[in-house]
Amino acid sequence: MSEFAKESRNKIVRGAKRGTYDKKAIYEILDAGFLCHISFVMNDAPFMIPTAYARQGDKLYIHGSVKSRTIQETKKGTPICFCVTHLDGLVLARSAFHHSVNYRSAIIYGTAHEVVSDEDKNEALRLITENFLEGRWNEVRQPNQKELDITSVLEIDIESASAKIRTGDPVDDQEDYDLDIWAGQLPIKRIYDKPVADQLLKEGIEGSKAAHLAWEKSKQ
Amino acid sequence: MSEFAKESRNKIVRGAKRGTYDKKAIYEILDAGFLCHISFVMNDAPFMIPTAYARQGDKLYIHGSVKSRTIQETKKGTPICFCVTHLDGLVLARSAFHHSVNYRSAIIYGTAHEVVSDEDKNEALRLITENFLEGRWNEVRQPNQKELDITSVLEIDIESASAKIRTGDPVDDQEDYDLDIWAGQLPIKRIYDKPVADQLLKEGIEGSKAAHLAWEKSKQ
Repeated sequence: MSEFAKESRNKIVRGAKRGTYDKKAIYEILDAGFLCHISFVMNDAPFMIPTAYARQGDKLYIHGSVKSRTIQETKKGTPICFCVTHLDGLVLARSAFHHSVNYRSAIIYGTAHEVVSDEDKNEALRLITENFLEGRWNEVRQPNQKELDITSVLEIDIESASAKIRTGDPVDDQEDYDLDIWAGQLPIKRIYDKPVADQLLKEGIEGSKAAHLAWEKSKQ
Repeated sequence: MSEFAKESRNKIVRGAKRGTYDKKAIYEILDAGFLCHISFVMNDAPFMIPTAYARQGDKLYIHGSVKSRTIQETKKGTPICFCVTHLDGLVLARSAFHHSVNYRSAIIYGTAHEVVSDEDKNEALRLITENFLEGRWNEVRQPNQKELDITSVLEIDIESASAKIRTGDPVDDQEDYDLDIWAGQLPIKRIYDKPVADQLLKEGIEGSKAAHLAWEKSKQ
């Protein structure tokens, strides 16, 4: 399947020409981030939290304390709405009305279940850590039994999805192009700054290659 | 009221020492952003979208097409969960387990109603535009009657809220401080790049002061 089926929940109603159901486009948006917002329903009311994630195939992985309310609720298999949004710029039109943002946003619908075996949990935690900072997993002390036991890992089946992508210049009303008003884009970037050592770092410890690579890459 | 009451929906269960119910702290997080995620329940399932917003007093304002599904559903007064998250850095611990993020995240619970009068709608749109880019409202053509008529503005009453803030170094297990593993923070910044003029910009138009100020400020 290269496209998600259009159904009531993932159908893009507004700005449909900026919408896509293409799996590759949606997964690229997911893979470009490491922090999502997850929402679910509890006692008929909406709840939402930001959390780290990773994708592999048609699955998403999140983790948390076994005591976390989000984990406890979502592992029951209640419907989840999962969103990743990247801001790429302000779109400054000649009219207030046509102001917009350039962005890439993926919305996923699915259900979660708990990852049970220590081996699978460890692998999901590796994916989450590597998605957070590529190359970090092999630099650090990996989870011990006690840590695995107090961590829940959830696997979310991606059942339905859509994305919206806006790029480029503002689109103004034809007659407004004659106005003496500057219009264009104010690009937004998320960058890393120079890594800052822990104040309690032992002397003589070499820097993190993973952190330095991420910093260097974000300077380009 | 300087603190939101602790109730079931806004109670911080995990990492309570990083949580706050302080109104000033929560509103500072809201005021430092312009893009939120809003979730609501429709047909017993969770929905979520990213959207622009502004805060004034104990109210939040969002807007959209009168035909937008989110607007249509939330203006009924169904419960809303509203979240703003700022990423400040990766927290790189010696153990995979203690990896974290430095962040500021505010979660608001409330209900919406439609702003009816053109005057109030216009003022809310001014607030949203100014929160998006300070100084922009007075640079542009403001909404005309047709635009006001096809735009819905919602006012959300902030009924309950909490925030979580993490700053500083990783916190590792005592015995891990002896490991030969680099630990610290990889700071994250969201910056503006140089404004890019619309390809269809009339010749001889001066740049946007608002955009230049935002760009200059983000270089500091």
